[in-house]
Parts: sequence; structure tokens; C-alpha cells
Amino acid sequence: MTPMTHHFLSLADLPGVQLGLVLAKAAELKKGPRMPAPSGFPIAGPLHGRRIALVFFNPSLRTRLSMEFAAHMLGAQAVALSPGADSWKLETRRGVVMDGDAQEHLVDAIRVIAEMSDAVAVRTFAGLRDVEEDRAEPILRAVAAESKVPVINMESAFDHPLQALADLLTLREELGRDLTGVPVTLTWAPHPKALPMAVPAAFLRGASRMGMDVRVAAPPGFELPAALLDEARAAMPQGGRIRTFENQADALRGSRAVYAKAWGSPLFYADAEAGLAARKRHSDWTTTEQKLALGDRAIFLHCLPVRRNVVVTDEVLDGPRCRVYQEAGNRLHTAAAVLLHLLGERK
Amino acid sequence: MTPMTHHFLSLADLPGVQLGLVLAKAAELKKGPRMPAPSGFPIAGPLHGRRIALVFFNPSLRTRLSMEFAAHMLGAQAVALSPGADSWKLETRRGVVMDGDAQEHLVDAIRVIAEMSDAVAVRTFAGLRDVEEDRAEPILRAVAAESKVPVINMESAFDHPLQALADLLTLREELGRDLTGVPVTLTWAPHPKALPMAVPAAFLRGASRMGMDVRVAAPPGFELPAALLDEARAAMPQGGRIRTFENQADALRGSRAVYAKAWGSPLFYADAEAGLAARKRHSDWTTTEQKLALGDRAIFLHCLPVRRNVVVTDEVLDGPRCRVYQEAGNRLHTAAAVLLHLLGERK
Amino acid sequence: MTPMTHHFLSLADLPGVQLGLVLAKAAELKKGPRMPAPSGFPIAGPLHGRRIALVFFNPSLRTRLSMEFAAHMLGAQAVALSPGADSWKLETRRGVVMDGDAQEHLVDAIRVIAEMSDAVAVRTFAGLRDVEEDRAEPILRAVAAESKVPVINMESAFDHPLQALADLLTLREELGRDLTGVPVTLTWAPHPKALPMAVPAAFLRGASRMGMDVRVAAPPGFELPAALLDEARAAMPQGGRIRTFENQADALRGSRAVYAKAWGSPLFYADAEAGLAARKRHSDWTTTEQKLALGDRAIFLHCLPVRRNVVVTDEVLDGPRCRVYQEAGNRLHTAAAVLLHLLGERK
Repeated sequence: MTPMTHHFLSLADLPGVQLGLVLAKAAELKKGPRMPAPSGFPIAGPLHGRRIALVFFNPSLRTRLSMEFAAHMLGAQAVALSPGADSWKLETRRGVVMDGDAQEHLVDAIRVIAEMSDAVAVRTFAGLRDVEEDRAEPILRAVAAESKVPVINMESAFDHPLQALADLLTLREELGRDLTGVPVTLTWAPHPKALPMAVPAAFLRGASRMGMDVRVAAPPGFELPAALLDEARAAMPQGGRIRTFENQADALRGSRAVYAKAWGSPLFYADAEAGLAARKRHSDWTTTEQKLALGDRAIFLHCLPVRRNVVVTDEVLDGPRCRVYQEAGNRLHTAAAVLLHLLGERK
Repeated sequence: MTPMTHHFLSLADLPGVQLGLVLAKAAELKKGPRMPAPSGFPIAGPLHGRRIALVFFNPSLRTRLSMEFAAHMLGAQAVALSPGADSWKLETRRGVVMDGDAQEHLVDAIRVIAEMSDAVAVRTFAGLRDVEEDRAEPILRAVAAESKVPVINMESAFDHPLQALADLLTLREELGRDLTGVPVTLTWAPHPKALPMAVPAAFLRGASRMGMDVRVAAPPGFELPAALLDEARAAMPQGGRIRTFENQADALRGSRAVYAKAWGSPLFYADAEAGLAARKRHSDWTTTEQKLALGDRAIFLHCLPVRRNVVVTDEVLDGPRCRVYQEAGNRLHTAAAVLLHLLGERK
Repeated sequence: MTPMTHHFLSLADLPGVQLGLVLAKAAELKKGPRMPAPSGFPIAGPLHGRRIALVFFNPSLRTRLSMEFAAHMLGAQAVALSPGADSWKLETRRGVVMDGDAQEHLVDAIRVIAEMSDAVAVRTFAGLRDVEEDRAEPILRAVAAESKVPVINMESAFDHPLQALADLLTLREELGRDLTGVPVTLTWAPHPKALPMAVPAAFLRGASRMGMDVRVAAPPGFELPAALLDEARAAMPQGGRIRTFENQADALRGSRAVYAKAWGSPLFYADAEAGLAARKRHSDWTTTEQKLALGDRAIFLHCLPVRRNVVVTDEVLDGPRCRVYQEAGNRLHTAAAVLLHLLGERK
């Protein structure tokens, strides 16, 4: 263990060239031979004997599959836990007298898991009460503070860096290794529920880190927080830019890739009815073939799961420009690259 | 990957001699040495590095244990997912505007899982609204159509071929390798719930494929669908036959094996009360020691789980002619044989 | 398989020197190299190819993580099942007509699991209706009677021997290998719920087996059953003793370790309101820094999960005398030692 524990909470934990190295490693793992000769002796994987705990406060399909498979592929073992379902209900506030429902404190659960594991991957959740509180990531930060082994963010209140890595790998595969200045649109989408901003925030951070020409389209009241845009711009290299649009068509025109994603507006956190009404007013933001055609041979991306014919039409998802399955498959290889980065041999 | 993906949806996917070869492989795996010398180097299993996703829309004990253990025994890794519990709730209808409860479409979930896995095993469910719809297996067929990797049926609306393989292996172990003309009775049993016909249909298909003398006993109103009997007869070799009985004793007389199983009647799908009343009218169909004695040294089979003293008495289950635990244990070896058949080296 | 199946239901299943040998093996495994050279061929673990089913009737974090990791560390495979959640709901009474909710009988589930596995680990639960019935362990005994492979108790109505082993390993690490005559206090603690006595019973059995000077402190009405004390004394070597205290401070004075644990009183099993009121009357039994200071450089132990500021203060848990995380981490090594003891090569 290095004295200062090395976490992966955000793309910011892959500073400078590290982001590119992890993406290159993911591409290499994807091309690599799937398995050694089945009748010989297996070579011990690079993470042989390592133990990884996957803690899911929210349900998961892609993340669980990709993390379990990635761990095993490298010779490590992963165990998935769902607190509240197959494990205990956890308290997250400090200093509280725990005479209510919660049977265990997050702090104790994390210390115990870290005692038995070589890494702790956690899926936490957005409070959806206060956007600044969500952006501060109180639960993820508490986990990181208590864990003596690396913590991996499997989606948090305001970030989803494993998803962003898969997005970026897909963009590189489709649009070239150098994404500087390549126009990409992140567009708001309708949805029956007020979703958190973790995925759009992660994609914005990722695309701007690659120096892309990022256009963020959202109807009035659904703009991404200015502080998030400032944060993304601060980490943006030469050649990149971020612009916001209230007109979806303007944002899409000339884009090489369209990333659609629903998110709620902090304006309506306290009023679910008003939020639903506001989202319904913009039901024409669904991504369609016609809109995709505004781009420049644009590919379609989405993190999945996706509400068909609400966020995007069947036609787009089942059509020739859709790359969402390739993107989901890339979760496996990027997860493996992150595990190697955190737990593999240090030179 | 072969251009035409090779699925295992039904025993019909093991045509001709393939069924016998898979059963022989299962018997060989069962006898084989359990493990290499524990202090030496392990040999890579024949499915080393393969990834298998197990998707359970319905709960499972035998199937999950047998599939996870079988995969591991062969060197592969299995991950079990329970959509709706630890994963997303899935929509199954095509073309729908997904603004309701379901967070993901089955089509997308399967495409994603297939992107990360070498095989997708699925437990789906019967609609219990329309027996012809169930027999058409709309969900299983949709899964198979969307998956670019082999799909394994871990029980569907109207079939359970992994169970049938374990049934057949047990019959071979107990009654001889050549089952042609051997009398076996599949008898309806009482039950508090209207169960689907997946298991009796699978057993009927399996026993008739082996050319057995199959007697199907059910009270009036609970007959298996004529189309199913026709389908089974069409795949039956020389020496086999299928007869139906309304009198349980007539069906049992001289049988070498008795397979009891509860199933509901399509007559009462829409009326749960009437269905329960009808099942209760035939509560004397419980398999007892006396009835088993009508057979010719008959062994007792059941897929489990079983309602004791409703489907069959304690006396039979705990008695000397019961083979249900051996049959359940055979799930492991037959599952392994299927995995090898689908994913092992092709000559 | 030995003719008489070797279970691990209680510390009594490690008679004589076996307890010490298992603890020594756990200490050795803890020190041992974590993993062989990652670029060479892996050595087959001592339990290579073995299959272990983990059956959880109650949720679990430490136990599941430690058992899954321990199994994998030794080369075995573990599969965790949660009957009622991802598996069937089980009936436990014999002779019953199963026309209710339960879909499978415990007896059948265990026979099936034992058919496919090399060991069955089970977490059962206390009935909390009749303390003598709980002490008789009807469910655990039924599991052991039906299983032809070793059964491992992962906490039962009145015992938790895997926890006790981790407790004892921690005491040895902190207070020396020979614990004879070393003063240790097991103190009752307040709690919003009426908890079972499995953990205090297991700790009492363990500490007395080591010949410690055990002081059990509990307020009037919450005394541990006399039969349990008698049982513990009967297995106690020379130099050990067990005393009970109604005054917490008297029990703590001079102790080298303090084990706090909440448990309910059989007096109030039938009356939850009266039980809660009785527990609240003794809310001053919370372990604090001041109380810990009554001991002789006393360390603090607890099995976790723990209700902070109810059972024990934040100050103690986050302070320098707390050993609960080390104790939880020891679950891994003691579980591995038990698996080796039960499934490893017999000389």
C-alpha cells in the first residue's frame, strides 16, 4: 500500500497523460487474446489473488457484469453486495444516535470491507435535494476517507467516471484517437423521472478533457450547473471548447456524435409534479433519425438503460448510426484498465 | 462465432445423436475425477476465460447453483443477475413508449449482456394468460433473436430443457442406457397455485425423444395441450409411444418411473378461484406409497421444489424409491455438458 | 467422505487441541504471502475444485464477504443464496401439508444443495419465542441431519462460532497466545431491537474455552441463561472462571478487553413494548471512554454491525483502544482456517 491511498473517484484522478494511458490499455485489452490455450496451464492473471468488493446502493446491470467479468479476467475475485437488500441498511450521517432503522454505519461497513479487500467499488446515489450538496459528493467522499484501500466510483451523486471512460473509448474507436476539436453534442432528453446529473456531468468532464468541441443542449430550466461547466473548462486542453444551447437543432448541426441523456432540473427537486410537467413540455426533445441527420455522419451514444421512444426512438437505437451496445461492451475493457491501473504493479 | 448462433432453447436444439452425446458427456463428467492434484499446477479448464451471464426473471436454487458450479468446474465464470431485484425492471413489448415503470427494454439488456458475455442463460416465465402464446415462447424467442452469443434456456414459459436432461440422465442411470419402450408415467398433481406447464412439457419431450412408453395422467380439464402431444410424437423414434389417461391408477400400472408434477389448466387461467376449486376437487391425485406400488419397482421423480403432502407424501420422498435428490444433483453434470456442447471446441 | 460427516456447528466441534490448531492456522494464513508471483503459473489452492454453498436466511456483510473471499483464496468456489429473496421460501416444520406460502421444504433444499456441494454453510435465525427452543437449535440441527456434506454454522439461533474464532484470534494477537486467566468482560448493551443471544453465547463459549477470567455483566432481567453458563463452565480448562455481575463498573474493573453486545431478554419475548421499555431503562449501559478506562489498558471488541452511540460511543469506536475492524478482518482468516479444517486433506 502506498502511504497516500490512490482512489478512482473521478476522471480527475487520472491527471495528465494517465487518462490517455488508461484508454490505450483498455483498447489493448479489448484486442488482446481472450484466453490462453485451454488445454495447457493457465498463466496467473496480473491481479491474481486480489479481492474486490462491489457495493451497490443502487441496482446495476452493466456495472456489475463489467466489474465482475473484468476482475475475473485479470485473475482477481469480486463479490457484489447490495446493502439494504442482501446486506444491512446503512446510516450515513456522522454523530447520530443510531436508534432508528439503519443497522450499520457506512463508516464501519467501509472500514470492514477495506479490511478484507484490496479495493472497494461503490455505487452511491444522488440526494436530489440540493445540487451543490450532490456536487460535493458527501457519501463518496466519506467512503474514500474511511477506506485504506483504493475506492472505485461505480456512479455517485454527480459523477460516473467508468461510464465516461467507455464513452471516450467508443468515441476514439469511431472518430479517431485524437478527438481535439471534434464536435460532439450532449443533449437533454425527456424522461418520466427526475434523474440525477451523474452521467451528463461525467460525459462533459470526459469530452472536454479530450479537447472536444462540446455542445450542451438543454431547454430553459434544465441547464447544467454553471459550476460544473467551469470545472470542465478548467481541465480542458488547448483546442477544446464548451458551448451551451437552448435550441437543440443548433447544437446538433455538424456534430460527429450525439449523446442523449435525461436529467432533472434542480428547480423542481422539491416539486415532483412541476418537474414532470416541465419535462413533458419538452417532450419534443426526443432524439430522432431526423435530428441525428443534422449532424455530420453522427453516431448515437447513450449510457443505458434507456427509455425507448421517450429519450430516443426505436429507429435510432436499432439503426446504423447507433453505437450504444459497443459503448456498453466497452465498459468491460475500461473497467479492466482501471483495475489494472489501481491494483497492478507500480513501476 | 459461427455465423448462425447456436442456442439451447429446447431439446430440439440437440437433434439426432446430439442428445445422446450430451447425456453421455454428462455421465462422463459425473464419474470423472473431481479435481486435479491440489498441490500441483491446475490445468486450464476447457472453458477457461469464458464468461456466462445468468439472467433470472424468476427465483432459482437448483438452476443457479448448478449453472454457477458447472461454469466454474469448466474454468468459466458465471455472474447471476436478477432483473427487478438487483438489476433493472425490463420492458418486453416492442414499439412501446417507455414512460411507465420499466427502466430498460429486454432487447437492450440482452444486446448489452451479449456484448460482454460468451453465453447468456435466461430464466423467463409463463404469462399464464394464453396457452398458445406461452407455447410460442415470445420472450425466449426475443432473447434468442437479439443475442449474438448462445442463449441457454434456464426455464421458459413452456420448456425447461436443462431439467429434462437431468431427468433423462437419472432414468438412464436407474433403468438402463436404452430407454426404448420403457414405461414411464407423467402424472398431474394437486397444488395451491396454478403452475405453468414448462416442466411437464419438457419431460414429455425428453421421454418421448428417448422412445419411452409415456403415459400422461391428468384429471378432466387438466389435459396437456394436444399440440404439445403432437409435437412430442413428431420427434419420437421407433418404439416410443404416448398415451393419455384420465384414470391415474391405469397410467401408473407397470410403470418403471413416476414423474409427478402440478400444472394449472388453461380453462381457469382467467378465474383463479375456479382454478383453485378444480385443483382441490382432485386433491386425491397426490402421489402416495400405495400408488407408487402400482408400478413395476417404480422410482419416483420430481423436478423440485415440491410441496410435501400436496404433490407427494413425505413417505414417498423420504422412502427407498425416491430419486429426486439424485435427479437434482444431475442438474450439475447435465448443465456442464450443455456448456461444453455450446462453448467447447468444435471439431 | 468420512462415514460420520464432520460439521462445524459450534466451537464444541473443535474439541481438545483442535481449537488451538485452527486458530494457529488462521494466524499463519494471515501472515502468509498474499499471492504467488503474478506472472508465473498459479499453484492450485488446497481446496481446488471444491464447491461451497452459502445459504443466507438472514442478511449478511462480513460473513458473506469473508466466506466468499476465504473460499476463493483456497481455490474453492462459493455461491451465495438468499432463500425468500433470490431463491424459494422454505418450510421448516416436518410433516406439514405444504399448501401455504412456502414453496420448498428446508429438508429438500438442503439435500439438493448437499448433492451439488462439498460443504453447506448456513445462516439461520432465532425464533425469539422460547429461549430453550432457540438453544436447542432446531433448524441448524435439521440442516446438519439432512446434509451428507459438512455443514458450517454462519450464525444460528444461539451460536456464531465463526465470529467467536475471529474474537479469539484478535484476543490472542492483542493479549498474548496464552489467554489463561486473562480478565475479559462481556457486557450487555442497550439496543432498539430485541436481539438474539447468538453472539454473546458464542463469545462466552470461546473465552471460557481459552480459560479466561470471564465477567458477564447484564442488568436484572437480561442475565444470560444459567444453562448456557453451565455449558460454558463444563468446557472450561483449568485457570478459567465465569462470574456474573449486575454492576457494569464492577465487571469492567481491571479487564484487558471489553466485549459489548446487545441482547434481548426472554422475559419480554412476548411483549415487545415492555422489552423496549426495559432496554431503555438501562440506556446508561452504553460503553463509553470513561467505562473503558476502568479496565487495564482494555481493548474494545464488538462483532459488528453496531449501533453507534447506542451500544457504544463514536469516541470509543473511533479511538485508539478499538479493535473491532481488526476483529472483522480476522473473520477472513478464521473462515479460511475452518474451511481447510473441514475440507482440506486429512492425514
